Amino acid sequence: MLEALKAEVCRANRDLVTHGLVTLTWGNVSGVDRASGRVAIKPSGVAYDELTPEQIVIVDLEGNVVEGDLRPSSDTPTHVLLYKHFSDIGGVTHTHSLHATMFAQARMEVPCYGTTHADHFVGPVPVTRALTAAEVDEDYEGHTGRVIIERFAGREPMQTPAVLVAGHAPFVWGRDAADSLHNAIALEAVAQMAIGTRTLHPDALPLEDYVLQKHHERKHGPAAYYGQG
Amino acid sequence: MLEALKAEVCRANRDLVTHGLVTLTWGNVSGVDRASGRVAIKPSGVAYDELTPEQIVIVDLEGNVVEGDLRPSSDTPTHVLLYKHFSDIGGVTHTHSLHATMFAQARMEVPCYGTTHADHFVGPVPVTRALTAAEVDEDYEGHTGRVIIERFAGREPMQTPAVLVAGHAPFVWGRDAADSLHNAIALEAVAQMAIGTRTLHPDALPLEDYVLQKHHERKHGPAAYYGQG
Amino acid sequence: MLEALKAEVCRANRDLVTHGLVTLTWGNVSGVDRASGRVAIKPSGVAYDELTPEQIVIVDLEGNVVEGDLRPSSDTPTHVLLYKHFSDIGGVTHTHSLHATMFAQARMEVPCYGTTHADHFVGPVPVTRALTAAEVDEDYEGHTGRVIIERFAGREPMQTPAVLVAGHAPFVWGRDAADSLHNAIALEAVAQMAIGTRTLHPDALPLEDYVLQKHHERKHGPAAYYGQG
Amino acid sequence: MLEALKAEVCRANRDLVTHGLVTLTWGNVSGVDRASGRVAIKPSGVAYDELTPEQIVIVDLEGNVVEGDLRPSSDTPTHVLLYKHFSDIGGVTHTHSLHATMFAQARMEVPCYGTTHADHFVGPVPVTRALTAAEVDEDYEGHTGRVIIERFAGREPMQTPAVLVAGHAPFVWGRDAADSLHNAIALEAVAQMAIGTRTLHPDALPLEDYVLQKHHERKHGPAAYYGQG
Repeated sequence: MLEALKAEVCRANRDLVTHGLVTLTWGNVSGVDRASGRVAIKPSGVAYDELTPEQIVIVDLEGNVVEGDLRPSSDTPTHVLLYKHFSDIGGVTHTHSLHATMFAQARMEVPCYGTTHADHFVGPVPVTRALTAAEVDEDYEGHTGRVIIERFAGREPMQTPAVLVAGHAPFVWGRDAADSLHNAIALEAVAQMAIGTRTLHPDALPLEDYVLQKHHERKHGPAAYYGQG
Repeated sequence: MLEALKAEVCRANRDLVTHGLVTLTWGNVSGVDRASGRVAIKPSGVAYDELTPEQIVIVDLEGNVVEGDLRPSSDTPTHVLLYKHFSDIGGVTHTHSLHATMFAQARMEVPCYGTTHADHFVGPVPVTRALTAAEVDEDYEGHTGRVIIERFAGREPMQTPAVLVAGHAPFVWGRDAADSLHNAIALEAVAQMAIGTRTLHPDALPLEDYVLQKHHERKHGPAAYYGQG
Repeated sequence: MLEALKAEVCRANRDLVTHGLVTLTWGNVSGVDRASGRVAIKPSGVAYDELTPEQIVIVDLEGNVVEGDLRPSSDTPTHVLLYKHFSDIGGVTHTHSLHATMFAQARMEVPCYGTTHADHFVGPVPVTRALTAAEVDEDYEGHTGRVIIERFAGREPMQTPAVLVAGHAPFVWGRDAADSLHNAIALEAVAQMAIGTRTLHPDALPLEDYVLQKHHERKHGPAAYYGQG
Repeated sequence: MLEALKAEVCRANRDLVTHGLVTLTWGNVSGVDRASGRVAIKPSGVAYDELTPEQIVIVDLEGNVVEGDLRPSSDTPTHVLLYKHFSDIGGVTHTHSLHATMFAQARMEVPCYGTTHADHFVGPVPVTRALTAAEVDEDYEGHTGRVIIERFAGREPMQTPAVLVAGHAPFVWGRDAADSLHNAIALEAVAQMAIGTRTLHPDALPLEDYVLQKHHERKHGPAAYYGQG
């Protein structure tokens, strides 16, 4: 069941290492099959370079294991909540990639300083509020998903497919697992460039809105003509 | 037709990855054949490590495709404008390399703090003005080329073979495709070193002009004696 | 004798290179066999990529060589003191990894800015006091161990399994040699992220204590449910 | 003639790449045979990964080519002056390694903030004065050597085997070519750590002098007991 999805999710998890997004085991990727309402996610406790499609765990949208011998990632409750509330997304990547996490720890959004950012994210990448003690106590991973959803109230999730959880790290999404990984790579690069931009010029201005819109539309709009490279 | 040029342009595009200048697909290299007025450029949507000389697209100096089944890079209008106006250049490299892009986003020129810089660029690497909303709306990639040309009015393009497009990223040129890549590698390194120099000493002085001239002349002047290494 | 321990210690020393924790030969890993009171440690003067289990030196808890033809690491007196005083630890990793050493040189603790830190260290990673001239003169490596032990008076060493020796570099420990290496990798990453966090926001606040406790407990507490990834 | 020296110098030049000390062709290593007064140095214009021992150029202490078909590095006049004036040194490495060059460009010495530094350099790594216009005009590479020698007047070159040429980059030396490379690797790492230390704590104090002396003596003194690792 869902063999293609499991293969894609396996590959995206292994590619976290190739693209330098993970230290130790700090990251996981999932993908959803909307027809069946099933989510394929990395198992807990398996090294990326030994991961096989057979080990990928299948859960339902409540996070219950449907298939697989291993325990799903402890971040599973966050992933499934995003799938339930963001109906257009098909994949989720969670990492502690270094520069994006610096912003999450500073509890600052990543400003849009240039076209690299605009090609992937319309406007700043937002940061959530901190969880309360009661939320942490009650359902930590679930409420992590809920503060993300709260932060995106009134927003189109695919316009800015990433968020920084305050004091924690980024969650990034996309059309499918590979696209969420693609956006996570972009987020890490624009976060690194944003830190350098601020170092050079603490009062650097964000990209002009008309350039932001142009870059987004030429890549993602109805008359998109921008491919790759 | 132009098989040698296509092979060289293919190799230079693949070398973007080897030299760490690109994340995802954020970069492209082209080369010109002045005799025929043809430009060879990376196709859009092809991964660097799968790129073959046959896939390189041939366009004329207006950007019209002359040969090739794939769509040329969406940055083609900028490349061809540079070839039309800078008659001495033979290759163009466009990247979003991290440290050069930090300067482009901060909208600051890269100061010449040392001989490494002077060996490749006579004086600061300039930054363009921002495009206006009307320019973005009318012909974004074309006007990107035009603000570069405007910035080099009265300058010799091969003396400082690079520019930072404000809020965007660098364009770099050279005698041929490989030389433009070489200069893009140098730009990224001197940008990184300039950020560190400013961190150590915010009021660091630029290199003495007589050392700048000496380094440039020993490498590029009529009595050049400086090879490699 | 102790072949499994020697193999594990050999592998952990070689992995220092894989994980980018050492420049030249600035690092060493040891492991202890509590039953026999023997410590296996890297020999001095052997390159990591040529290290074999047979070359690992066995010393007693006073640092006397019990087995092996090579001289043990000059840091051996520090390692054995840690084993004598921290009865729960099974491995020690000493490196001069770049970002952790920046904190040691600045003589500042690494603040806990996020959950990445909390997953490995309960609260800030502490820094020792400087050694006195008399201590350096009398028994430099031994007193290095003693100021670490002094700094951990009244603390549980496995709660915060790392320390920065002022003006020197980190010592990190764990349940065994591999676990101490794991914690050394985590320390280097959280130190790098902490520097970036401070650059973005000099007055960044530490992680809320209730999140710190939650992360530590879900990973290390009696009802731990957090695996890897 | 001098086959072993040429092989060692070839290997040290190739290792510049392995250790991440060079961008493009910005670096060269030489070694001297004191008995014959001959210096083996990298030829100009040869890529590191294609360099063979046969291509290494032999020059005398005036810089005249004695053996070899290729032109010696344009930095040869600086290398030979160092050999003439620093009688204890056997190898010289010149790079534009990124972090050491940041200090050279900021025209600041690298302070000794920790034991990593002390293990290789007794006290700060000094920076030269700038060359005058007359010196640049008369004999640029020769005067580069002379300002280094001027800076070391009254000093023991092997105590602090490195210097930063103001506005340029480091020159590093050692007992032989491999040792000079070793010291160049150490300089780059301690320069990077020093920048981070200053970022964390702009008024960080240098290492206590008694620790500096201890580290230097345990590694280089008559009763040295510190090997590697």
